[in-house]
Amino acid sequence: MVPTLTWTPEGVRFIDQTKLPLEESYVLATTYDQVADAITTMVVRGAPAIGVSAAYGVVLGALKTKAATAQEFAPEFERICARLAATRPTAVNLFWAIDRMKRLFAKLAGSGVPLVEIQQKLLAEANTIYDQDIASCRAMGAFGADLMPDEGGVLTHCNAGALASCGYGMALGVIRSAVERGKHLHVFVDETRPFLQGSRLTAWELMADSIPTTVICDNMAASLMRKGRIQGVVVGADRIAANGDTANKIGTYNVAILAREHGIPFYVAAPWSTIDLATATGDAIPIEERPAREVTHYAGKQVTPDGVGISNPAFDVTPARYITAIITERGVMRAPYTESLKEMELVS
Amino acid sequence: MVPTLTWTPEGVRFIDQTKLPLEESYVLATTYDQVADAITTMVVRGAPAIGVSAAYGVVLGALKTKAATAQEFAPEFERICARLAATRPTAVNLFWAIDRMKRLFAKLAGSGVPLVEIQQKLLAEANTIYDQDIASCRAMGAFGADLMPDEGGVLTHCNAGALASCGYGMALGVIRSAVERGKHLHVFVDETRPFLQGSRLTAWELMADSIPTTVICDNMAASLMRKGRIQGVVVGADRIAANGDTANKIGTYNVAILAREHGIPFYVAAPWSTIDLATATGDAIPIEERPAREVTHYAGKQVTPDGVGISNPAFDVTPARYITAIITERGVMRAPYTESLKEMELVS
Repeated sequence: MVPTLTWTPEGVRFIDQTKLPLEESYVLATTYDQVADAITTMVVRGAPAIGVSAAYGVVLGALKTKAATAQEFAPEFERICARLAATRPTAVNLFWAIDRMKRLFAKLAGSGVPLVEIQQKLLAEANTIYDQDIASCRAMGAFGADLMPDEGGVLTHCNAGALASCGYGMALGVIRSAVERGKHLHVFVDETRPFLQGSRLTAWELMADSIPTTVICDNMAASLMRKGRIQGVVVGADRIAANGDTANKIGTYNVAILAREHGIPFYVAAPWSTIDLATATGDAIPIEERPAREVTHYAGKQVTPDGVGISNPAFDVTPARYITAIITERGVMRAPYTESLKEMELVS
Repeated sequence: MVPTLTWTPEGVRFIDQTKLPLEESYVLATTYDQVADAITTMVVRGAPAIGVSAAYGVVLGALKTKAATAQEFAPEFERICARLAATRPTAVNLFWAIDRMKRLFAKLAGSGVPLVEIQQKLLAEANTIYDQDIASCRAMGAFGADLMPDEGGVLTHCNAGALASCGYGMALGVIRSAVERGKHLHVFVDETRPFLQGSRLTAWELMADSIPTTVICDNMAASLMRKGRIQGVVVGADRIAANGDTANKIGTYNVAILAREHGIPFYVAAPWSTIDLATATGDAIPIEERPAREVTHYAGKQVTPDGVGISNPAFDVTPARYITAIITERGVMRAPYTESLKEMELVS
């Protein structure tokens, strides 16, 4: 199991995803501020993983407070949550996890529970979110495996794997589960510019599991599809609106269009915490713009002329009509998503 | 004018396109073998530019021979042409230029012209190909400018610019010509992995001409199209089959699909020498597979895990049905291309 993030008595230990695959090093965040920095700088990334990280960030903030009572701590708690929520805007799992911690705190503080006990309950809650994340990935994998071809090529974009979660992964969980059932899949991995989550992280994970893997540049997918090398696409998600529109890593929308053009099914695998029924459509999902340097520099070396304009949106929105099915731990949903998401919300 | 390649008394002087944009350095090829190496290693690249380079390579081979007569030189001439033709398989301009030199040599040698005179006539022929290339780009630009929007965003992929030709450029010639006519274009440049011809070369050219430029990763185009930021796409070509199917830099087919999906016109600009009426459809165009290292490494630094599979086709084929128009120095052609190409062949 890839140790994406681990709670320790000293703080949260992250595998440094900016250094993979050549260097397997770890970063220990001992304050909530350091957790926030780890999220912003993408030491840890992936919607479910940053949600769990933020929950542990809240725990660290609570454990390190100098306040003596819950009441005294309350305004500081708000600041901690606000700092963690301000790290990245698109993945809704971040806000979902922070809200869960907030609700627990409000309930306990309102019931007069002593601060020391609240601290322990917040840690237990973060641990539960962590455990549930792994369980969700396993369930998604089981549901999604049925949808994978018995043999053939499957394309994935970015990293919706163990490194984007607490283990097993979403899109890669589906692939892992299909392979465990004896399906013969060859995974084509979009390198995923500019941060190269595909060539650096997804390829590393899949090779560790001995799953046949070929890395391609993002612009090679259509050519492979036309040659009949790809039988399915499976990706993760950062936020799914009530109508099924899905925000995911920049380039996902490109892949979805190409898949439909070639008659290839396009699947999204994400935990229920990625679904944001409060957001009506993809147009309302905020899209993070990342620093230009991610595009202008490659492995520390400048590749563009000085001063050229750069666009670096970290995500795009794939309209629901391109999505063959959405795979969650509760089951598989199909269009019309406004109905299927609402129905599935009642299941739990 | 960008000095892509220049004939000098010592040989062919190339701007080293592997070093741009940060370093403007030059390579002097004094033998046909060095010209062949410059083509293979992409010191010079772009379909028209490698055609002209090969013609000058033939000249260098002819000038340096120890043969005393055309008859004695003939088998060596064949070897020179074969070496230059073996550099890269996809761009037909390479074979077109070599064939043109071959036909001239056969005619002169068959007429008993002395070798020293043949050498001078081969050089004159290469110079003519060079001059015609620039004139073609200017003519393409004039025809294509009409097709550009009066204002708005235009996307281009790879570099079909002055650096891919002897000057002015094909796709970038169309853009330059439109801007010279007062059209207000903002050019979005796909960085074009893995060799980054877009972010390194096209951005450098456009900035030198003060044309507003934004570099994007290849996977960002669909998102910009959806936001209404792109009003047209113009790209170059490495080979156009008799039915209009067009081989061009890998990723062109992706862009063509995305453009059609968003109702955006998709134009190909290429000199007539890129059109290969002897090849019926795109399926018959050979596609070069480039070294894996172009994907696994950048600036000497490895970015993928050891031993991962890599696919690195240098080109893809865009079926004719995605192409709004093909712009050549003879005029603009539209579907059905089998007819329009045949008709235009009679024009000259």
